[in-house]
Amino acid sequence: MSNPFFKNFGPFTIKEISNLLSIKPEGLNINAFVKDIKDLYNSNNDDVTFFHSKKYIDAAKNTKASFCITNEALKKNLPKNCVPLIVENVLVSVSILTGKFYPYSVDDNFDDSANFIEETKFKDEVKYGKNVLVGENVTIGSNCLIGHNSIIEKNVAIENNCSIGSNTVIRNTIIKNNVKILDNCVIGKHGFGFFPINKKNLRYPHIGIVLIEENCEIGCGSTIDRGSMSNTIIGKNSYLDNQIHIAHNVKIGENSIIAGQVGIAGSSRLGNNVKIGGQAGISGHLKIGNNVEIAGGSGVIKDIPDNTKVMGYPAKNIREFLKANK
Amino acid sequence: MSNPFFKNFGPFTIKEISNLLSIKPEGLNINAFVKDIKDLYNSNNDDVTFFHSKKYIDAAKNTKASFCITNEALKKNLPKNCVPLIVENVLVSVSILTGKFYPYSVDDNFDDSANFIEETKFKDEVKYGKNVLVGENVTIGSNCLIGHNSIIEKNVAIENNCSIGSNTVIRNTIIKNNVKILDNCVIGKHGFGFFPINKKNLRYPHIGIVLIEENCEIGCGSTIDRGSMSNTIIGKNSYLDNQIHIAHNVKIGENSIIAGQVGIAGSSRLGNNVKIGGQAGISGHLKIGNNVEIAGGSGVIKDIPDNTKVMGYPAKNIREFLKANK
Amino acid sequence: MSNPFFKNFGPFTIKEISNLLSIKPEGLNINAFVKDIKDLYNSNNDDVTFFHSKKYIDAAKNTKASFCITNEALKKNLPKNCVPLIVENVLVSVSILTGKFYPYSVDDNFDDSANFIEETKFKDEVKYGKNVLVGENVTIGSNCLIGHNSIIEKNVAIENNCSIGSNTVIRNTIIKNNVKILDNCVIGKHGFGFFPINKKNLRYPHIGIVLIEENCEIGCGSTIDRGSMSNTIIGKNSYLDNQIHIAHNVKIGENSIIAGQVGIAGSSRLGNNVKIGGQAGISGHLKIGNNVEIAGGSGVIKDIPDNTKVMGYPAKNIREFLKANK
Repeated sequence: MSNPFFKNFGPFTIKEISNLLSIKPEGLNINAFVKDIKDLYNSNNDDVTFFHSKKYIDAAKNTKASFCITNEALKKNLPKNCVPLIVENVLVSVSILTGKFYPYSVDDNFDDSANFIEETKFKDEVKYGKNVLVGENVTIGSNCLIGHNSIIEKNVAIENNCSIGSNTVIRNTIIKNNVKILDNCVIGKHGFGFFPINKKNLRYPHIGIVLIEENCEIGCGSTIDRGSMSNTIIGKNSYLDNQIHIAHNVKIGENSIIAGQVGIAGSSRLGNNVKIGGQAGISGHLKIGNNVEIAGGSGVIKDIPDNTKVMGYPAKNIREFLKANK
Repeated sequence: MSNPFFKNFGPFTIKEISNLLSIKPEGLNINAFVKDIKDLYNSNNDDVTFFHSKKYIDAAKNTKASFCITNEALKKNLPKNCVPLIVENVLVSVSILTGKFYPYSVDDNFDDSANFIEETKFKDEVKYGKNVLVGENVTIGSNCLIGHNSIIEKNVAIENNCSIGSNTVIRNTIIKNNVKILDNCVIGKHGFGFFPINKKNLRYPHIGIVLIEENCEIGCGSTIDRGSMSNTIIGKNSYLDNQIHIAHNVKIGENSIIAGQVGIAGSSRLGNNVKIGGQAGISGHLKIGNNVEIAGGSGVIKDIPDNTKVMGYPAKNIREFLKANK
Repeated sequence: MSNPFFKNFGPFTIKEISNLLSIKPEGLNINAFVKDIKDLYNSNNDDVTFFHSKKYIDAAKNTKASFCITNEALKKNLPKNCVPLIVENVLVSVSILTGKFYPYSVDDNFDDSANFIEETKFKDEVKYGKNVLVGENVTIGSNCLIGHNSIIEKNVAIENNCSIGSNTVIRNTIIKNNVKILDNCVIGKHGFGFFPINKKNLRYPHIGIVLIEENCEIGCGSTIDRGSMSNTIIGKNSYLDNQIHIAHNVKIGENSIIAGQVGIAGSSRLGNNVKIGGQAGISGHLKIGNNVEIAGGSGVIKDIPDNTKVMGYPAKNIREFLKANK
């Protein structure tokens, strides 16, 4: 849970939080306060955390948080130092409270702090095209290029020797040395994460960022969404072709090659040296090992171990697939 | 058949129409005139309609139109009040005549009526970024945002509390309250409809619009084409992820969730509460029921009844698919 | 191998080339020079060529080039007039040397020669929107339209009666008469071609162009990459829908119809009158015949003969597929 960019509006008292989430205040020290909301693993004693699924019982037993949003069934697993805050729907409550700590992370309206680069400190430091805009809280290293009509919105850190194409929009993103992002991309917008509610869905905050490591290349028309609670990461020296979609919280390893029109759904983690053919898709929350090769057009719906080649929909061992489809 | 935006250049006399479509004028009242071209169901007695397939015999028998473009084989089904105009290829003739009524609906060249928003009446009513353009015949409600470099071309009506991202182009579209359209989208261009003719295809007019209902969200890099004779509709509170393509005449119901890189071909109609996983595709002219779930990567080539979960290509019952693909 | 646009920085002496590629100069006439680098078929006696695979033995035996980059195993097939230049990795060496002849073909940074069209000779010859940019070495015929925010970067030749949409970027491209390119496209950037090397991939030069023949239409959000050694070609009167990706060196024939979100991988060659349904994918280096129909969602991984209809992944005869998937 890394949020170098979004302003934290805390601390908040337990009274404020109880009111916000309709929690009964009986037995609570309503004057206590918390400074941040973090997951079970990363919380400290001045944080509130959350616990919504049996999968996380071990983490819950060891959390350092002083307060935890949870439900009646799960609360017994919390340690003595951690006071349960009982709600009906844990994730909805977490979403609402995170939005209170980080209100700017919920919506992705256009950045009205962005101004023409000629009117910023980057005027003499960056080589830029026509009509380039830069927002607040941006840093740009030496020897960088920014193409025509591109918008570096607020909360972007670009290191050295980077080349940004034209008509590209970037926000809430860290870009390391020697990265190329080509034309018509959108990097760093919130992910497709919300609670479906009839008549009006509830969007949850995305306080993560996009991190693009050294020597990467991102093709034209690609979209990389920022993480919700963790970050979206493109590992060193990975090359992405055109029209690729990388959803929130995805981790791509180093030296990976991803061909055109591939899509990777939320929270999947890929190892190093992964090769993915054009138009392949990877479902959410999967673990793809190192040195995996996924044939073009495949649909991956299960974890894939290291050093495996797969093909098909659902993707299976490539030899079996080709044998069965002679 | 709704065309609130395109200027109707009629009425035209039967003489003019006969000349245009190479119809023999014998027996026709060449001085009669018609005001509009509509389908068999919606025509009135001052309209010309068309009848090209046996599928529409019942509608033909009951049409109120005074004239009907049809062929020798079908003309016998028309009622006495409706004079047949005999042509060789009904749909090509309809296309040509529709182009005469609505010449501005054939091509989608850039809107040269668009001007910088600072020079329009919206200057003080809308919160906007740099380099925003607005065309003729545009309305924008209260509390709306329009991002940098976006172009609201002619024939757009935006209601209240809407947020348009950056680098987005919109034309021939009605957008209801509380809609968000993110960056790099193109909404309202003509569909991929034309008559294939060697050396030079014949584009047919698209006189429909795009209608985006309340509380929708459209992700980055998506394209939604306007309808040809009917409208393209996104129902209330439906959320579309990035890089989605919605073709002309498609209807999407309410409370639907459509993940990244999905494509829906022309004239398909989806019910309410439909969920579609990433990269799935739906062929044209299909009927997808309410509460249908389509797994990511699926290819749907048949109608799907209500309350069904499907997966695969071609998409079938999800349990059968998973059983067969263990 | 056609490179009308990229400046050739040759000639270079064999001494310079030997130094660049770490070739032992023994026995070589180091003062000889070559003017260009071409493939085995197209080389003349003042060119250097390359020979990296047994597949090209016949071409090697007949090449007219005076020098040839090759390896120890293959050199015996060269004719007497052609002096072998022995390297470890032929294609990497070719890439490095091509980059020396054509340094501007390696990277696709934004075109800093582009200026507002109002300040160019096209001011009175073209009908254009707001904020249009035009680079060096551009020609535009009569009766052309260029939409808002579009960028005609350097090395583009547009003939007559063409319509370019808004937010589109074009470079290194020849566009014939009556072509339409819609909004948010990127045409002519380098392909996804590089040598994968841990820590830092080696990009190879793309000295080809994109050639779009008469009467074509390219839909919104599409990307067409230029060729590496040959050209990417879209044949006459072919229509491409939205969000299509055409990779480098692909040839599409005449009168073809390609629906939304199709992807065609590098170096595949399609015949005339090919129809491809939405979201279909074609692997690289395939030969697709004339009058082929590929159903939507299919994945083509083999050559397809003329007059064939295919469906599925991997794509097979459409009747067999539908029979097996009832």
